[in-house]
Formats: sequence, structure tokens, C-alpha cells
Amino acid sequence: MSILIKNAYIVTMDKDGAGEIENGFLLIENNLISKIGDNSNNAADSISAGTVIDAKGAILMPGLSNTHTHLGMTLLRGYADDMALQAWLETKIWPAEANLTAEDVYYGSLLGCLEMIRSGTTAFCDMYFFMDETAKAVEKAGIRGCLSYGMIEFGDEEKGNKELATNEKLVRDWQGKANGRITTMYGPHAPNTCCQSFIGRSKEAAERDGVGVHIHVLETEAELNQMKENHGMCSVHHLDAVDFWNTEKIPVLAAHCVWMSDGDIKLFAKKGVTVSHNPISNMKLASGIAPIQKMLDAGVSVSLGTDGCASNNNLNLFEEMKTAALLQKVGTMSPTALPAKAVVEMATVNGGRVIDKQTGVLKAGNKADMILVDIQKANATPVFDVYSHLVYAAAGSDVKTMIVDGKILMENYKVLVMDEEEVMKKAKECAFSLAERAKPKK
Amino acid sequence: MSILIKNAYIVTMDKDGAGEIENGFLLIENNLISKIGDNSNNAADSISAGTVIDAKGAILMPGLSNTHTHLGMTLLRGYADDMALQAWLETKIWPAEANLTAEDVYYGSLLGCLEMIRSGTTAFCDMYFFMDETAKAVEKAGIRGCLSYGMIEFGDEEKGNKELATNEKLVRDWQGKANGRITTMYGPHAPNTCCQSFIGRSKEAAERDGVGVHIHVLETEAELNQMKENHGMCSVHHLDAVDFWNTEKIPVLAAHCVWMSDGDIKLFAKKGVTVSHNPISNMKLASGIAPIQKMLDAGVSVSLGTDGCASNNNLNLFEEMKTAALLQKVGTMSPTALPAKAVVEMATVNGGRVIDKQTGVLKAGNKADMILVDIQKANATPVFDVYSHLVYAAAGSDVKTMIVDGKILMENYKVLVMDEEEVMKKAKECAFSLAERAKPKK
Repeated sequence: MSILIKNAYIVTMDKDGAGEIENGFLLIENNLISKIGDNSNNAADSISAGTVIDAKGAILMPGLSNTHTHLGMTLLRGYADDMALQAWLETKIWPAEANLTAEDVYYGSLLGCLEMIRSGTTAFCDMYFFMDETAKAVEKAGIRGCLSYGMIEFGDEEKGNKELATNEKLVRDWQGKANGRITTMYGPHAPNTCCQSFIGRSKEAAERDGVGVHIHVLETEAELNQMKENHGMCSVHHLDAVDFWNTEKIPVLAAHCVWMSDGDIKLFAKKGVTVSHNPISNMKLASGIAPIQKMLDAGVSVSLGTDGCASNNNLNLFEEMKTAALLQKVGTMSPTALPAKAVVEMATVNGGRVIDKQTGVLKAGNKADMILVDIQKANATPVFDVYSHLVYAAAGSDVKTMIVDGKILMENYKVLVMDEEEVMKKAKECAFSLAERAKPKK
Repeated sequence: MSILIKNAYIVTMDKDGAGEIENGFLLIENNLISKIGDNSNNAADSISAGTVIDAKGAILMPGLSNTHTHLGMTLLRGYADDMALQAWLETKIWPAEANLTAEDVYYGSLLGCLEMIRSGTTAFCDMYFFMDETAKAVEKAGIRGCLSYGMIEFGDEEKGNKELATNEKLVRDWQGKANGRITTMYGPHAPNTCCQSFIGRSKEAAERDGVGVHIHVLETEAELNQMKENHGMCSVHHLDAVDFWNTEKIPVLAAHCVWMSDGDIKLFAKKGVTVSHNPISNMKLASGIAPIQKMLDAGVSVSLGTDGCASNNNLNLFEEMKTAALLQKVGTMSPTALPAKAVVEMATVNGGRVIDKQTGVLKAGNKADMILVDIQKANATPVFDVYSHLVYAAAGSDVKTMIVDGKILMENYKVLVMDEEEVMKKAKECAFSLAERAKPKK
């Protein structure tokens, strides 16, 4: 199986390689990129391939990686907004989650995959419940998913053992499945919902199984205050004491990181932790402004996440890219903070690296995960700078074609891997039924 | 000429009237809405109309109003980003503007109109140069434009006279043209680029001609400091001394208003000034966070604007709605600030009111300016709350149909009023030629 894409404006994100190619071609053989080059002399004409895509008028770039979401929650899009955090959780989100079924999570996840395909996201990191269902959805949808089970034990050892066993089963059942598109992580929920020793045990299990860890850290000032009060130090240092941030053996993914001190940032840079920045969720829940420019200056690998649909309310990484740049500028009162190219790196290179080292950059030998972004549109007229275009002017709906692991999932705006109407219909039914069940009993 | 729209989820934005109608119909006769009602009993079946639109699976709502932009600058989309303000202006924007031709502004404006049609904006307020060209573009595109000439005199009386004459000519030539779709205002640029007496004279001219005024106010902290230093008071009080904010006779539109004090806000509320909030531009240029929730609490009428494409970089009011809500929440550290419905009001009711009192609300007797927003999409699944959907989950590209002044400008994603490819081609040619001319001479 081979696919040749030609006449594209290629944004490789390969710093040491091709950079941008104004008129380029890219050859995919099986699930890998085998060749990439300049096509201004029609070099691609001599290449034969099973499928040929003429990408004139489009940007070819690595697919985007969404490094923090809760895909089952896609059903809860718009279920509750504009509320104070505790009331939102206690009266709306937790009652809904308490009523979630496996079927809900399956259709919520499939809907989420569909939305990601339509808006350019080829890979994502998830943390939620009923993860078998999300795995099945990923298997069907054809994208790349790095799945963790959200373990919460509140210091209860027995519950902790069960949670670890559930996450371990996810790893045993799904790691490497779907030709490697499905990978797994351990997901200790957060430093204020799991005790230190439990989080340490999660890390040990992950190292034993050779998979990563995914955790929420310092999303709110309340967590920072609580940790200081209970432990005399912040979450980052509290977990450093059980060597949680050590990435010598496995990747460590830390979501939010809004309330990081300069010392925390230094530690993350030294340890090689990947941060998932979720600017829209952080703004919507009024969590605060994460010090992303400081992190990048210190050498931290920062990626982007949408968080779940209950706090966003979509899975559109183009919106996340623009918002990340804007928020950092106003947050530091400097228009030069977080320039466009750095944002595209976050959404491709840095996000890809934590999910699969062979993704996030278009170069020979890497996996064939990529998108075509349509620039024959009013909002793409003119394009003076391709990175500026992608961050400030483009929309997720400009993504016209997606290839993951060498397979075309969407071609010229047509999704090939699922019946969209059927997925939306089923997801709606699940969502409204869930909302009905979650209503307070009289 | 009559158009019947049926089976729509209607969001009227009519507080004292119909509110939302889950299954509604709306009848347009000539350029006005003649009837609006519930269709759950198929009431619309007995109505005959020249054109019938089945709007099942779509939200019917007032078109959005963009109350502050510089449409000719659409050509400068992505021309310069991520720069410090002075360098951005001095080395990029001003040299480009110095080379602008009438043709540039015509195609920049037409491109801008096209982008607004594609993203749901039926009306806009502009302030720029070569305004005849923008008027011609509006005439052709079929949307509603409220045009002012950006007058800058820096205290030079002779220049001031010329600037006033140019704006006066715009008013004489275009006010009320295109069946009233084109209206005009006087556009004294800003309190730190025009002297107090000149701004006072602009206001007098506007009152004499029965049109509004449009001005930038307190966009940056630098303006605030400069005004305090030079005049011992801020821009708002400095202009109050020449009665600029008085809206008894004409509307007064103040763009940005980032650095407003509580006293300024109180004055604006009392006077009836309409604020145009431009959150994306304010973030991108690191101008600051305008105190919008405070303004709404005080009773100020706040609308939304995109600003020009050089500082956004698009004209998408759906992005502006979401960003407005998010920015206010993180800016006040309260997730309840600026809830979704208030944002939709800003983009419809409040924006419409300052442009044409018969727009911004769907009710009988009002002008037929409206859009259909497609909700048969993954990102619109499910819709629990229509306002939340419009602000947090929808995209400009979900707008499928637009009607302005009783005429269909876009139907089921097809733009009917111009040749899109031709407009994009011409705009690109103008943009790249302009960039070439604006390059520093060797």
C-alpha cells in the first residue's frame, strides 16, 4: 500500500531536516513515510503509488496531538457551564459521571474521535473510566490514542489496589494494539485525590510495564494551597520525593501546571517532564494562566490539550493553538510571547513525542500521521507566513484530509471510517438519556 | 418577494417576546420580518412564500454584528505578528498603509465581506481609509456596513479641516445607500491622535448630519498614561469636557476601552455609549483585559469587534464570542463571569442596536438579517443549551445560510453574491503587490 501526496506546501516541523517545502511531495509506504522532497521540478512524477493525492492549495503538516482530554465526557458538551467550580462538579458533573455506562463512554469516545478527525487531531492522551470502550472507539476510528485509567483512591489502600488493577488490565489488554495505534499509561488522577505513596506505586507499575504516566498537576490555586497546608510543599516537590518526575525509563505527562513556581519549572525541565497546557479549560474554569513562556525558556517540553468537552466545549486544537498564543501574550503583557511557530511545535512535535516518538514530525522513517489544511478559503487569503496562518487565522474546519498510520481517515472533507450521522445520533441518545438519569431524584 | 423559513430552532434574542422557539417558522416579506412563530403544529403549512427554506437541524438567529474593524486591512492578515507594538507599527503596518491604493482597499474589503458572510456576520462598523471602496464592496456583498473615515490630525488644524471634509463627503455620498444597508459615522481616530477640540468638532458634524461617531478609546495603558501626563485626566473625562459621550441625538461607539476606571464605566453607562470589546486583538497586542463584566453590571451596552485582520487575524465573531467569555472568566478569576447568553446578546442585540435599530433581534417589523447555524455536526453533538453551544462549541464555519435585508447571500454553504475564487485571487495579488511596495528601499 502506498500513497503519494504532491504539490503540497509542506510544513515538516523537522528542525534539522527539510523545514518548509513550498511545493513538495511525500510518499507513504505501508504505515511509514518513506520519502519527502521538493517537487518544483516534478520529481514526484517518476514515483508510482497506489493512491495519488494532489494537494495543491493545501498545507501538508504533521497531525496534531491533543495530550490531555477525557473523551467519554464529549457527551457532556454544554451540559453545564458558567458555574462556580464546586457547584459545577457537585451538582452536575459528578452526578452525571456516577450514571455513566460503558455504552455512554463508547459513543462519547467515538463522537470525540470523529470531532478530532474533522479538526486535525491524529493522536490524543486520555484519562477516564470504562477505558476499554475508548480503546474500541480508537480502534474503529483509526486515530492514535494513548489511554490511561483515571485512578482516584483518596488514601484508601484497598481502593488503591483495585484502581491499580483496573489500570493494569488496560495496559495488559490494549498496549500496542491496532498496529501500535493504541498505547497506554497509568493515570493517577492528581496529587490531591491520590496519596503520595499510591502515586509512587503507579509510577513503579508504569516503569515495570514500560508505559508512561499521566497526571493532573497544580490545575488550581486551591490544590496548591491544600498541598502546602497538608504537606508543607507544593504538588511537584511532594511527588519528587517518590521520584515521580524521573523520565529516564518512561514518559511523564503532567496536565495543566497552572500554578507552577520557578523552582517547579526548573525541576520539570531537568527531569524531562512533558507538560500539557490546556488554556481554554484553564480560562473557562477560571483556573488561571499557566507560565508557558517561562517553561519554554527553561527548556520544558510543553504540548497542548483541550481537556474534556465539559470545560471547553470542543476538541478543536486549532482553537487551542490560537488561545495559547493569545493568553500568554496578555498574561505576560508582551506581544512577543509564545510566537506562532512555537505554538505549532507544541501541537505537533512536543505532543507527538510523548505519544509515539515516530510522530509529530514529517520525515522519512516516521509514522504516516498527517493532515492537509485547505488554504483556498477566504480566511486563508493571503498567507504571508504559514505558522501565523495556522495559529491565528486557520480553523479546525479547514482540515480537509487526514492520514493516520498510513490509512486515509478523511479525504477531501469526507470521513471514511465511520457513519457520521449514525455516530451523532447514538451519541445524542446516550447524552440525553444520561442527563435524564443524572437528574436529582424527587 | 417572500421567504419562509421553517422547522428551525429559533433564537430570537427578543427578551420581551418569543425568546427561543424549538420548532419555529419565520416569514420574510421584502426586506422585513413579517411573522415569527411556533411551528410544532405545522402552522407554517398554511403560509405561501416565493422561497421556502427547511431549516431542520439548524439554529436560526439574528446575524452577528462586528462593531469594530478596519476591513481594508484584511489584506494584511498575517503580514506581521508576534512583534512589539512600536516595531510592528513602525516597520510593518504604517509602511504598508502608506502604500495602500484604492484597489487594495476594494479587494481587501470585498475579501473581508466574503469572510464575514462565511462566518455569520451580517453587519459591521468600519473605520479606515479609501472608504468609497469599502462602500462599493458592501454594496456588492449585500451585508450591512456602518462606515467611518479614520480621521487623524495630531492637533494640525489645516489637516483637521481636510480630514473632516473627507469624512463629510463619505456621509454625503453613502449615508442610507443600498436600501439603507450602508450607513456612516464620523471617525475621529483616538484621543491621543486627535486633539480635544477636533474631536468636539467631529461630534458636532455628526450631530448636524444625524449620524454616529466611532472612536478608539483607552486601548493601551500608554494612552492612559499619556493623557494623564498631558491633560491631567484620562481620555474619557478629557472628551466628556466637549460633551463627546452624549448620545441624546446620535449613537456613540467606543472601541477597546481596556483601561477604563470605575468612574469611566459609570459615565459610559449614564451617557449610553456603546462599547466595542475586541478581546482577541487586545490579547494579541498585549493591550490588556477590558473590565467587561463590570461594564455590563453597570448597565453599559457592550458589543463585540474583531479589530482589523492585522491583529486577530480573522473576522470570525464566533471566535470572538468564545474568547470574550473565556478572557473575562480568567481575568476576574470567576467562572461565572460573562455567561454564554450575555455574550450572544453582545454579538447580536447590542451590536445590532448601534448599527441599525431594526436589527439584532428577530421579531416582526425588524429587518430580515439572520443566519442559520448548522447543528448536524460532531461539534454540535449534543446541544444541551443553545447559548452555550453558540459560544463555546460552535465555529464560524457552521454558518450555512445568511439572509441580509431580505436577500439570501449564502445558501447551504454556497455564497451567491460574488465569485469567491475571483475575489480571493484578486485579493492575493493586491496583498503580495502591496507587501512588495512596502519593503524598505535599499
